[in-house]
Amino acid sequence: MSNPRPIGVFDSGIGGLTVVKALGDLLPNEDIVYLGDTARVPYGPKSAETVQRYGLELAQMLMERNAKALVVACNTVSSVALPLLARKCSVPVIGVIEPGARAALQATRNRHIGVIGTRATIRSGAYEKTLHATDNKVRVSSRACPLLVPFIEEGLLNDEITDRVIGRYLEPLVCDGIDTLVLGCTHYPLLTGAIARVLGGKVTLVDSAHNCASAVHEMLDRQSLSAPSSNRGELHVALTDTADNFLNVARDALQLSFGEIELQSLP
Amino acid sequence: MSNPRPIGVFDSGIGGLTVVKALGDLLPNEDIVYLGDTARVPYGPKSAETVQRYGLELAQMLMERNAKALVVACNTVSSVALPLLARKCSVPVIGVIEPGARAALQATRNRHIGVIGTRATIRSGAYEKTLHATDNKVRVSSRACPLLVPFIEEGLLNDEITDRVIGRYLEPLVCDGIDTLVLGCTHYPLLTGAIARVLGGKVTLVDSAHNCASAVHEMLDRQSLSAPSSNRGELHVALTDTADNFLNVARDALQLSFGEIELQSLP
Repeated sequence: MSNPRPIGVFDSGIGGLTVVKALGDLLPNEDIVYLGDTARVPYGPKSAETVQRYGLELAQMLMERNAKALVVACNTVSSVALPLLARKCSVPVIGVIEPGARAALQATRNRHIGVIGTRATIRSGAYEKTLHATDNKVRVSSRACPLLVPFIEEGLLNDEITDRVIGRYLEPLVCDGIDTLVLGCTHYPLLTGAIARVLGGKVTLVDSAHNCASAVHEMLDRQSLSAPSSNRGELHVALTDTADNFLNVARDALQLSFGEIELQSLP
Repeated sequence: MSNPRPIGVFDSGIGGLTVVKALGDLLPNEDIVYLGDTARVPYGPKSAETVQRYGLELAQMLMERNAKALVVACNTVSSVALPLLARKCSVPVIGVIEPGARAALQATRNRHIGVIGTRATIRSGAYEKTLHATDNKVRVSSRACPLLVPFIEEGLLNDEITDRVIGRYLEPLVCDGIDTLVLGCTHYPLLTGAIARVLGGKVTLVDSAHNCASAVHEMLDRQSLSAPSSNRGELHVALTDTADNFLNVARDALQLSFGEIELQSLP
């Protein structure tokens, strides 16, 4: 059994393309429709109610595009809206929090895990709750890093000022004794090199994009939703506002290829 | 003749409170209604069409609140939507570009002016056009500084990393020979200290908030719209989403006082 319909992936903006990259590497036969809400990005500083409303709107648009499954490639939306989305959507919905938390629990040796993300993701406590649901003894140190997304969007992926900012954010977590760090924002895989450089190999990095792709793979298999193996997976990108500079940064850094960007109007 | 109705001030978020501060200092009898579109901030990376649509919505909401005049306390909206707003609104509309440009022309001695702002403001060329409309020989060097707003919103107003970022942005303008710098974003007055520190007194700073307030003063006088001198000017703040950390940063740095924040729903 196979299913040729596309996987719908959405994010508040462009950052979720790191999840698309991971999906494309793991599931090369799947068609992907990516929807980025660039007209209202960023979601990080917005209230939970607003993020839930926006998340439902994006999910609805992707279902109208015949998506067979929805991937919430945004930690902010995943952390405040996943149960709501799962309830309201007629297709399977996979977020980034649970796969990332599971991978962190597998990686940690001293059972002390760090989590970094936007203010909204960290404020939600979603990673702590998910980690503690599996292992209530694991220690979690979290930190909001609101300046990292702007640096990534400027393309300053390898820059001494970026390294200084990362060091400022991560030093307290390292001093605290974490041995594993969850990159709890889909932008952050673009800074993996810089973060590893600053941490100097002392901490295992858990990339939520990669782990989310594995979870999608499992679900498609389990529910017999995988694309036919003859399918040549294609990526279609739609945005709610014209793309800025960051689309080029992400496309180059991730080596993604896609055709013309479609402009999706909002309700 | 006097008019007790409030002045309506709007911005994409919280940054426009620098204009409110300048208005309050200059016009202590005026009531002010401030509307910040925190649900959709920032406007800087968005397209001109989207910014125009949002600007019209905010103007409409303030007119429904009986505003006697509208102050567009946002360089991005001023740079792409002012003619449209002036055409569609039934009350006088004042932006931040023209007052800032006029002050810069008065300040420069070598007729070489620098302009910094968001990507959208700089891309629009609004300052160049306005400067050249008065003096077509003046030289203008512009630079988008997209990282400054995130640093300001984090409250890092006096921080060595902020100084490094400012230095990176301004060095080419200083090397180019500007003697005057327009702070073409309403957030930037909060960094006046840091920018002056980095520039070391070699360049005159022109603050669009302060010059916008002077323009409002003149217009109210000219059109007999000033509040009665017995009026004790009050500030009311409405936002389209709950405020984050930056509201406290701005309130403290600007020493503003206002009561409870009202949540304004979007159309």
